[in-house]
Amino acid sequence: MSRAASRIDGLRLRIVLKPGLVLGPGKADLLQAIDETSSLTAATERHGMSYKRGWTLIREMNSGFAGPVIETRKGGSGGGGHAALTPLGRFVLERYRRMETDAAEAVATAVADLRRHLRKPVKKKSSAPTRRPAK
Amino acid sequence: MSRAASRIDGLRLRIVLKPGLVLGPGKADLLQAIDETSSLTAATERHGMSYKRGWTLIREMNSGFAGPVIETRKGGSGGGGHAALTPLGRFVLERYRRMETDAAEAVATAVADLRRHLRKPVKKKSSAPTRRPAK
Repeated sequence: MSRAASRIDGLRLRIVLKPGLVLGPGKADLLQAIDETSSLTAATERHGMSYKRGWTLIREMNSGFAGPVIETRKGGSGGGGHAALTPLGRFVLERYRRMETDAAEAVATAVADLRRHLRKPVKKKSSAPTRRPAK
Repeated sequence: MSRAASRIDGLRLRIVLKPGLVLGPGKADLLQAIDETSSLTAATERHGMSYKRGWTLIREMNSGFAGPVIETRKGGSGGGGHAALTPLGRFVLERYRRMETDAAEAVATAVADLRRHLRKPVKKKSSAPTRRPAK
């Protein structure tokens, strides 16, 4: 899934669960990519994130939630590490995606209202209006 | 109103209305502070924002929406400038606040679910458990 996974109709939702633990599209996309690739390296690469940044996000979650959100094992068959969501990690990801969907539905009318008041893009004149020549 | 105006139960909502125009808590809080102080300077100071940053946010809105969101007049009675929301600016602020309220309501259950899985703060032992002395 692309980086746009967390951008439902332009919505970006962040929840401060407690001081020092914010859950937003970056962490959700990272968890989802780990689930899909079984690799923290591949997951961070998918989102153009450094491995170090990925670990920082994971560490924030691991220390903020009651337990770790991913489990890692060194030396998979490909030589690299193997990563997988724990049941808690899956729960966090699912709840976040549900919140996105529910919030997007709740704000859809207001977003449409606001978009009706955007500046119209300037149209290039594709053909200059021509004066009908006098007969 | 405090900086916390846009942080309903930890919710931070951003909407990408179109490329280059994101509406989030920073712009909403700025519009609200202008409405309450009638001054861009006072509004930016309230939110610990530079005047230049405030103007950047206003300019983004003025050029992204169909018209300006604030109107300014030089030389108020106090010598400084006077700023006020236009009807469009008020509309943008009101729609954003409504979105926050609606989104917060929509995600409340999931947020509570997630908060039940946070690590419990380490309690300091206020009194060490004492062993009941043998009679």
